[in-house]
Amino acid sequence: MTELSLNFGTAFEKTRAEVDRVLLSAPLLIRTYTSHLTFTHGKFVRARAVLACAMDEKGSIHNDAVVFAAAIELLHLATLVHDDIMDDAAMRRGVETLQKKFGKRRAVICGDYLLSAALKELAQVEDTDKYKDLDASDYVQQICMGELRQSENNFNYNLSMFCYLGIINRKTAALFEASYFAGAVVCEQDEKRLRLYRRLGRYTGIIFQLTDDCIDYECDAKSAGKSVQSDYEQGVITLPVIHTFHNKPELKKRAEAGELPAKELLDQVKKSGGVDFTHQTAKRYYEKASEALEALRFPRQKAEILKELLDKSYCGPGKTGIFRSDDRLNI
Amino acid sequence: MTELSLNFGTAFEKTRAEVDRVLLSAPLLIRTYTSHLTFTHGKFVRARAVLACAMDEKGSIHNDAVVFAAAIELLHLATLVHDDIMDDAAMRRGVETLQKKFGKRRAVICGDYLLSAALKELAQVEDTDKYKDLDASDYVQQICMGELRQSENNFNYNLSMFCYLGIINRKTAALFEASYFAGAVVCEQDEKRLRLYRRLGRYTGIIFQLTDDCIDYECDAKSAGKSVQSDYEQGVITLPVIHTFHNKPELKKRAEAGELPAKELLDQVKKSGGVDFTHQTAKRYYEKASEALEALRFPRQKAEILKELLDKSYCGPGKTGIFRSDDRLNI
Repeated sequence: MTELSLNFGTAFEKTRAEVDRVLLSAPLLIRTYTSHLTFTHGKFVRARAVLACAMDEKGSIHNDAVVFAAAIELLHLATLVHDDIMDDAAMRRGVETLQKKFGKRRAVICGDYLLSAALKELAQVEDTDKYKDLDASDYVQQICMGELRQSENNFNYNLSMFCYLGIINRKTAALFEASYFAGAVVCEQDEKRLRLYRRLGRYTGIIFQLTDDCIDYECDAKSAGKSVQSDYEQGVITLPVIHTFHNKPELKKRAEAGELPAKELLDQVKKSGGVDFTHQTAKRYYEKASEALEALRFPRQKAEILKELLDKSYCGPGKTGIFRSDDRLNI
Repeated sequence: MTELSLNFGTAFEKTRAEVDRVLLSAPLLIRTYTSHLTFTHGKFVRARAVLACAMDEKGSIHNDAVVFAAAIELLHLATLVHDDIMDDAAMRRGVETLQKKFGKRRAVICGDYLLSAALKELAQVEDTDKYKDLDASDYVQQICMGELRQSENNFNYNLSMFCYLGIINRKTAALFEASYFAGAVVCEQDEKRLRLYRRLGRYTGIIFQLTDDCIDYECDAKSAGKSVQSDYEQGVITLPVIHTFHNKPELKKRAEAGELPAKELLDQVKKSGGVDFTHQTAKRYYEKASEALEALRFPRQKAEILKELLDKSYCGPGKTGIFRSDDRLNI
């Protein structure tokens, strides 16, 4: 193992340290706000994906994967900060959001700063030519499109499942794809296999978001570590509700008339099987993702880590009752 | 002149066309908002700077300069969209701002989209290795710092001239420096000369902002093409006011007590010489910039264009009365 070659545990710790270094070495004024984020970062699911995908046959990881992992986590943080402005969200990962704590104006700029910090991080890879097919700005644009489309469909009770899947495909799954792709490019060159990695990432992202949407109707705020049962009140229409409105058009009419209280909808979503349907949809993607994972025929450790990421992203109907944030990789 | 070698006029038209192409080829949903910007773009002062700086001894410009010029204009647009959210601005370049017309949420995302479009554009340069010292993310971070520091000093009537110059140095002058630097790197390699280009850009940017701050106290909205006399009401403290408060502390006390109406301040700023002082400060930078320009000993056409940019950025006290947006390169 050369100096630039790390095992998974070391690479993961190095990534965490690198993200913290960037957040804590920001100019004082920015740091006031970004240091708030260092204590609350999630479980680095995207970073784990980058590092696992970057493992070679011997299980060792080139340092460039650490750079990509840190950059993607910073980019993810940036999107969260702006996303919370869009949603007017008060809580994230168990603490107050930046926009709630410090105001929308500062949150806009802190998000921009984090975005540029992510790009600065990317510039640290050893051999830029090797990664020329990895277009970070294209993924950022996909995320923007997803966010905007979600925003445009706020309070659209006629949102179709097709459109909804298009939104989460961009809003969430694009960055998952980027993570798997980046990791893969570090250690592989074969076009066919790269496509499989991307597919695995894309599906895992969709599963992740579908499960997250279920949390909003299944959990209390404490166990979810963020505001829950707030999607509907903020006009964010997710699959559990789309399914419920499809089956009970009279509820949709009442929602359109502004006469459907959130509490009643919550009961109805559970009763009418909206949450179960969403879990089942996630399961279909889980099966597709598992196929991609098998087709890749990874060495044991690599296969295990990626399988664990997939399993923790997915939380089937049977597990609904034991859903705790500790059990699941935080978004 | 090779296919990739253009004269200034052609390069400028190509840059405009490229920015429009990016704005108009955005996905439909984004285009709804960005097309709004194509009809209102300014006079591309930063693009002009890139192209002029990129001219070789024969006056021809490599196509990479067009890429940089378009990227910097897109980046500038992105910062304007987010800046207008920060300032809650209603008008820009004579039309309603994106945040006023479509709401803050959409403006956040459109700004992000434009930022990533700028980075995507940058990736189009022919030889990335040649430009590795041009760190776009570093300039974005400087701009963020300037914006944030300005925001932190909102309604700070004790803001010093020193701090204020630090703010505009980052908020405005950084992107000017980037423009001059990018153009220079396209056609020059000499470190000493590159430093002079950067200095020229930095000073021109400061002059530009100081003149813009004067407009807020000198012009009506029609001739300025944007909201004026609004800085003070929004708590943005600029040099004309800093000077006035320094000379008339009793006014500062009344402002702090919330007892100084904007209209009265406007009169006082004019009477007490706050605007003149700002023009004089701009003049000091104008002299420094002129020195840098002379030291560079450019061929005639290149010198003329860069001199014109400098002259139009600067508008001395004598010209106060004839200040029209047509006379000046829009910010």
